[in-house]
Amino acid sequence: MKVVLAYSGGLDTSIILKWLQEEYDAEVIAYAADVGQEEELDGLPEKAKNTGASKCYVEDLREEFARDFVYPMIRAGAVYESGYLLGTSIARPLIAKRHIEIAREQGAEAVAHGATGKGNDQVRFELTFYALEPGIKVIAPWRNEGFFQSRTEMMQYAEQHGIPIPVSAEKPYSMDRNLLHISYEGGVLEDPWNAPPKDMFLLTTDPEDAPDGAEEITIDFERGDAVALDGERLEPLPLMQKLNGIAGRHGVGRIDLVENRFVGMKSRGVYETPAGTVLHRAREAVEQITMDREVLHQRDAIMPRYAELVYNGFWFAPEREMLQAAMDRAAQTVTGTARVKLYKGSCTVTGRRAERSLYDADIASFEAGGDYDQADANGFIRLNALRLRVGSLKEQDAKG
Amino acid sequence: MKVVLAYSGGLDTSIILKWLQEEYDAEVIAYAADVGQEEELDGLPEKAKNTGASKCYVEDLREEFARDFVYPMIRAGAVYESGYLLGTSIARPLIAKRHIEIAREQGAEAVAHGATGKGNDQVRFELTFYALEPGIKVIAPWRNEGFFQSRTEMMQYAEQHGIPIPVSAEKPYSMDRNLLHISYEGGVLEDPWNAPPKDMFLLTTDPEDAPDGAEEITIDFERGDAVALDGERLEPLPLMQKLNGIAGRHGVGRIDLVENRFVGMKSRGVYETPAGTVLHRAREAVEQITMDREVLHQRDAIMPRYAELVYNGFWFAPEREMLQAAMDRAAQTVTGTARVKLYKGSCTVTGRRAERSLYDADIASFEAGGDYDQADANGFIRLNALRLRVGSLKEQDAKG
Amino acid sequence: MKVVLAYSGGLDTSIILKWLQEEYDAEVIAYAADVGQEEELDGLPEKAKNTGASKCYVEDLREEFARDFVYPMIRAGAVYESGYLLGTSIARPLIAKRHIEIAREQGAEAVAHGATGKGNDQVRFELTFYALEPGIKVIAPWRNEGFFQSRTEMMQYAEQHGIPIPVSAEKPYSMDRNLLHISYEGGVLEDPWNAPPKDMFLLTTDPEDAPDGAEEITIDFERGDAVALDGERLEPLPLMQKLNGIAGRHGVGRIDLVENRFVGMKSRGVYETPAGTVLHRAREAVEQITMDREVLHQRDAIMPRYAELVYNGFWFAPEREMLQAAMDRAAQTVTGTARVKLYKGSCTVTGRRAERSLYDADIASFEAGGDYDQADANGFIRLNALRLRVGSLKEQDAKG
Amino acid sequence: MKVVLAYSGGLDTSIILKWLQEEYDAEVIAYAADVGQEEELDGLPEKAKNTGASKCYVEDLREEFARDFVYPMIRAGAVYESGYLLGTSIARPLIAKRHIEIAREQGAEAVAHGATGKGNDQVRFELTFYALEPGIKVIAPWRNEGFFQSRTEMMQYAEQHGIPIPVSAEKPYSMDRNLLHISYEGGVLEDPWNAPPKDMFLLTTDPEDAPDGAEEITIDFERGDAVALDGERLEPLPLMQKLNGIAGRHGVGRIDLVENRFVGMKSRGVYETPAGTVLHRAREAVEQITMDREVLHQRDAIMPRYAELVYNGFWFAPEREMLQAAMDRAAQTVTGTARVKLYKGSCTVTGRRAERSLYDADIASFEAGGDYDQADANGFIRLNALRLRVGSLKEQDAKG
Repeated sequence: MKVVLAYSGGLDTSIILKWLQEEYDAEVIAYAADVGQEEELDGLPEKAKNTGASKCYVEDLREEFARDFVYPMIRAGAVYESGYLLGTSIARPLIAKRHIEIAREQGAEAVAHGATGKGNDQVRFELTFYALEPGIKVIAPWRNEGFFQSRTEMMQYAEQHGIPIPVSAEKPYSMDRNLLHISYEGGVLEDPWNAPPKDMFLLTTDPEDAPDGAEEITIDFERGDAVALDGERLEPLPLMQKLNGIAGRHGVGRIDLVENRFVGMKSRGVYETPAGTVLHRAREAVEQITMDREVLHQRDAIMPRYAELVYNGFWFAPEREMLQAAMDRAAQTVTGTARVKLYKGSCTVTGRRAERSLYDADIASFEAGGDYDQADANGFIRLNALRLRVGSLKEQDAKG
Repeated sequence: MKVVLAYSGGLDTSIILKWLQEEYDAEVIAYAADVGQEEELDGLPEKAKNTGASKCYVEDLREEFARDFVYPMIRAGAVYESGYLLGTSIARPLIAKRHIEIAREQGAEAVAHGATGKGNDQVRFELTFYALEPGIKVIAPWRNEGFFQSRTEMMQYAEQHGIPIPVSAEKPYSMDRNLLHISYEGGVLEDPWNAPPKDMFLLTTDPEDAPDGAEEITIDFERGDAVALDGERLEPLPLMQKLNGIAGRHGVGRIDLVENRFVGMKSRGVYETPAGTVLHRAREAVEQITMDREVLHQRDAIMPRYAELVYNGFWFAPEREMLQAAMDRAAQTVTGTARVKLYKGSCTVTGRRAERSLYDADIASFEAGGDYDQADANGFIRLNALRLRVGSLKEQDAKG
Repeated sequence: MKVVLAYSGGLDTSIILKWLQEEYDAEVIAYAADVGQEEELDGLPEKAKNTGASKCYVEDLREEFARDFVYPMIRAGAVYESGYLLGTSIARPLIAKRHIEIAREQGAEAVAHGATGKGNDQVRFELTFYALEPGIKVIAPWRNEGFFQSRTEMMQYAEQHGIPIPVSAEKPYSMDRNLLHISYEGGVLEDPWNAPPKDMFLLTTDPEDAPDGAEEITIDFERGDAVALDGERLEPLPLMQKLNGIAGRHGVGRIDLVENRFVGMKSRGVYETPAGTVLHRAREAVEQITMDREVLHQRDAIMPRYAELVYNGFWFAPEREMLQAAMDRAAQTVTGTARVKLYKGSCTVTGRRAERSLYDADIASFEAGGDYDQADANGFIRLNALRLRVGSLKEQDAKG
Repeated sequence: MKVVLAYSGGLDTSIILKWLQEEYDAEVIAYAADVGQEEELDGLPEKAKNTGASKCYVEDLREEFARDFVYPMIRAGAVYESGYLLGTSIARPLIAKRHIEIAREQGAEAVAHGATGKGNDQVRFELTFYALEPGIKVIAPWRNEGFFQSRTEMMQYAEQHGIPIPVSAEKPYSMDRNLLHISYEGGVLEDPWNAPPKDMFLLTTDPEDAPDGAEEITIDFERGDAVALDGERLEPLPLMQKLNGIAGRHGVGRIDLVENRFVGMKSRGVYETPAGTVLHRAREAVEQITMDREVLHQRDAIMPRYAELVYNGFWFAPEREMLQAAMDRAAQTVTGTARVKLYKGSCTVTGRRAERSLYDADIASFEAGGDYDQADANGFIRLNALRLRVGSLKEQDAKG
């Protein structure tokens, strides 16, 4: 059997790489995706081959990630449970898509990953696997009864097979990083009454240590997508990279919440999403002057479902595509500029403008001129009140 | 004819008070509601009588406002267009309700108010009037062709009738204040590219001038309602008053947006809602550990409609009451404590706990113990993927 | 002034035609749209000119009506208040669109229509006018204080101006007919306890008089649109015409309800929609085997809003277009055939099939084979139950 | 171990009864619920004991079923996927609730049922088990690897253990019956292009064989619940029984569809729901004159989710209870009478009335009198059109 394994070079996936060879007598092809986790990927192929991989793919997916995954999601205004900007969720379908493509290229019957049996990531990976390649065999060692049941067993196995064990102390929480965010969970974060440790954060300065001077930036949007930062036109990837730096410096983009996993339990997560937070706010500001009221309200009505789909892993699902069609239609007019102020953890909109603003001088005079007749409000209110009056009369009749 | 007029003692409603007497040959009863606008109301009855009112009601509605209007709305998580906490919207139905009660007590056939023909407040007042007293006659002078068409005319009229004209310079924007917030709009704010003037804000310190030291507070909730601040049990009104002070000192609660009015145009509004902002965040934090996932998602799905109803003035409407029934049911389990940090304009949740938390040590062990079997995820994922696999197979068949 | 008037040749619009000339000293251009009302339109231009029209447009819009209005709406599954198939609603935007085009061609500043001030049609016409030509002047004589306040006055005016008064007795209800339906309201129908008169219906045989033999037909759909009837490929217009005949013969498509008008009151309406009813049912049947579950549920969640928009007259509105984008995406897979049985008023689906059915022999074996493992249901149920168990445990703790 | 088994006396659950004793060395308590399946339950305890049960409960749940399950669901207007009236779905939580109560009474650690691993019923049963008794052990033999894998094995086992094998030929489909409906699926129905066999239906006459004379009946509702039939006040159970007879005689209540199961596949189901169909239509008719427009539209917006919850088995779930709170609030005004005509398979509303109708003579005059001013429609339309005009102007600017 041939298996393509999502491989990071870390202890767990190295052990899995070896274990797959032994357990399934399989040829294992390692695959690592670069979605902006800023880890050293240079030595990975060698490391993989040392652990027995027949091949190792290292794929730079960052541009595609920014352009085809992060941007459409931000365009849709997606926020899960009023706070989580879906940084991990949105990376998984892309990683899994390339995973399947490699399996096809290599004629592999199976794919394997190192996600555990309690999390969302296993679901996100596997829904994508099945959606793109319905006949694929999926191996998830952590859910396999034959896999290691304790850290000690794993360490022994690693030693036996010459898998290097990292010497640095393990962090008291786990983290996942990509272009859009870093997430932290587990360990010391498991008590939701505890604040996160001050030294945990990597992308954002502690607001209390952030610069004393505020910084204002502008972002230009076209059809819901950020296209320029401070007037400089940038592709999605460099725009996000640059914005991560600026927003992070000011401590913008931290969020700390208890969220509901698809697999059924609540989980505490802490996130840093500097660029994502600013893009979200700035886009809202431009929307406010360019999006029709009823379009905006309809968008807000379907957004929670859209975000739930992304969170749960249903990116390559027809219902997400259906909602995306509506979201893209809604974003069609969202072209303009927002100015935001970054200061000690907060991101405040201070201005917004658009050539085709639905709020501007022309409209103001349109209202004030002969065209907005205040008397129109009489009829508007009276007809809106009609059903309330009738209902009230009937109730009074019943009482009287 | 007898008319009850919503009267503030200011220039506009004083002129209306006189004008109603002349135009309708009416006996006018003045009525001022105290919803926390912190204006001097002591001399009001005398002032009203000097301008010809037969009577003047000054009503302290602050407790009722906090308890029966603000609290149920916050319990429902209501936010309009992702930002506006509905401070003005929620006061209007209460003011109008008491207005109607006075009209009944006084046997008045009509009610009058000084809201203009372009705003939301006219709608909110009048929908409440009609819902509670379907046969009432409503007089809205600003929409009346016979009313003054210019400031000059009004000034002349005031002088002729001995109505005192305030000497202080008018502010370059209009504002509305109550216990929950101050709103600012118009004037210099009309250009949405302009940031609000630094000296405009009354309830909140400029974040850049706020204390350098962060402050942490705790808020206890019972069934979705805040009941204690830093461990001190407080009724809604004093709790909000105290919290306004604390949050305002740290610059928390400013929001600047362009919103969609019910009457059809976009409008720029700047708001200060210190206590409201903190209560909203803190309640979310407690919800996250006490509210079932599907209840939360359902709440989020109907919240935008609930907020729209409040914004548009449909408080005394059966559809708001229907949604409130759902919201109150959802809030039933929301009992617990949140700890938030206030610092230079931001309000960050740093901890949450609850006796009946759906996330706690017991659950953790419940998961880890024999009861959460990671292998369960296999079936969960496979059945969730089934329709995607079938769909994908059909598509491949079609292509192949 | 130049005015384009929607003109039917009947008494009311003839009077309006004359009145516009007198009241506004206007040049009036008459315009009649053929949307399948099956009235004699041949003599109309002459009649219009006799009453003073400078010109008369008679436009056959039936193809466009079926293809660009009825079909997209049916594709979206639109039903208002669980019963009304929107026959009148969907015709209005098209009629008004052509009205505006004529106004532009003729350089007219105003458009006029004969709809009354209590109904939905005035709204549907005028929202379209304003959406397509925001600066247009709209004249709605029935809402004009200077217009006739009684039938007697109108008769006198007609006589004075040589406008022919129909001799046939007026029907005890009003009706509106087009390709999609006939609606009946008013008069004897105003008492909602009264059944409609037996001889009122024009398109459908009384079910009790319909043929004793049932008839089965098949309809083929492509991407949600009906393309063939009993295997014969037909364009939208002839397909609907033919299907109206068949379904009407069997008494299919009557509906009797009390609906809520946009202007605020309830209204009793009786409708005959033979082809529309059958198309709706048949499309549902094909959807059931070709549309993904979550797409279907999402469609059902937004359909009521879509139908409300069509009912209220917001066809040319960005929010309808946004929803249409989602609806069209959802309908993309709806290709297949339904067989329905027509019998004495009922339309029953008896079979459905599709080449790319998501329910078929292949799937059955896919399920039964090695691929659907019944044991998967264990994990599926257990993880779906997890939050219920935790919630229940917490409740028991609290009690115990 | 003690196990309570849902037992019907049929071959499958008899085999399971024996198998549980052998496989788990368990004491098995048999339990049969009467929800109106109209089967002989008299000899059941003896039969169960003969197969080794230590005890046998036979519980008549019909009243509770009608009153506390069917009625609240009908009050909510629940229909799954535009057709299925949820007859089986709504019985399962009740059956499972009593199952758990018996397990508690008997101190049993486990519950067992005979539902297969591909259907919805296993989910409905088990979600209820877990929600009410989170620590319960659930045994579902059909999903158990150690259980019989073929009919032949089962027959042998039955013979070996003296379990009587029914002599009558098996039906070419499976069915489930209760007070609300009979469902048919599987076998000859599996080809969705095939019409159901004519002789399959038990509750309804074939419409083509139904009486040639139509029958009109009236149903009175109070707060959304049917309380009288043809003027005779009846409790839920006898009302439904009587109505099943009348409607069934006229062939009313058949539906044939392909639905989406919670476990992921599409499934063809044919249903007879005579009383349920009539109650649903009649309630709609009364709602139309007694329910506020916006309440009705809100109800319609959340109904699909409510129905999905019932279908999936989430009756004892906080989100269903939350929605029920809204549904019950909405139904509060639904008091009145509907008249429906039953004729050869169709159920047509011919009249509706209510003391507190929102449509009646009083309202008519209210409209026509001084209170409905047609001129009000001017302002109503103009303000509703405002955003469309502004949007259109901006678009023209952009083009021009």
